[in-house]
Amino acid sequence: MSHDAIAINTPHVLAEVEAAFDAYETALVTNDVAMLDTLFFDSPHTLRYGAAENLYGYEAIRAFRAARPGKGLARTVTSRIVTTYGNAFATANIEFRRDGDSRIGRQSQTWVKMSEGWRVVSAHVSWMDV
Amino acid sequence: MSHDAIAINTPHVLAEVEAAFDAYETALVTNDVAMLDTLFFDSPHTLRYGAAENLYGYEAIRAFRAARPGKGLARTVTSRIVTTYGNAFATANIEFRRDGDSRIGRQSQTWVKMSEGWRVVSAHVSWMDV
Repeated sequence: MSHDAIAINTPHVLAEVEAAFDAYETALVTNDVAMLDTLFFDSPHTLRYGAAENLYGYEAIRAFRAARPGKGLARTVTSRIVTTYGNAFATANIEFRRDGDSRIGRQSQTWVKMSEGWRVVSAHVSWMDV
Repeated sequence: MSHDAIAINTPHVLAEVEAAFDAYETALVTNDVAMLDTLFFDSPHTLRYGAAENLYGYEAIRAFRAARPGKGLARTVTSRIVTTYGNAFATANIEFRRDGDSRIGRQSQTWVKMSEGWRVVSAHVSWMDV
């Protein structure tokens, strides 16, 4: 087995994940539930820790989105770091703010390139303690 | 390029990451700062969103740990899910509680197998909103 160093931020890989992340952010703020569902890996292994809920498995995440009100989702991304490791693995981390809310939000995602495309396998959203 | 499905939870890979995660948890609750530092990838790309701080780069994380009081770190892990994707990538997600605190803590890590061993490249710790 090779122990070569893993390539970080190979340009064409990074471009793929940045595009997938852009698609996710657009879908989130426009409440495009179908696209959000598409971008999460359809697997019982997928999980999402939200600001106020812990969701285990793709079905739990899908049901949460289907039930969530579609208003008040707009946000401003104040920091964004996408990093790729090899050709099929990446992390995406942002800080964000919502209008009228002084708190700092953070969103972390782990992306894996599956045969069907880049998919989120793990996500964590929270408000930073002040 | 191959588009074979990525193997999830290959037993020997999962065993490696579970062991690395065990080492991390032990180091955390015993405040073994040297081991915690070892288990984070030594790179400016590494980041950690903590409950009350956002740290960018290995040096910022190392400085935070060096300055943190070593008491009150004990916690009980109430849920633990480690999942591996291929031979070199993994996520580790736990829920935890601290004595005398009713809040639910969540910790998410992304691990990559570097030439020096399994390392955390991204972490997010938060208290769930109640």
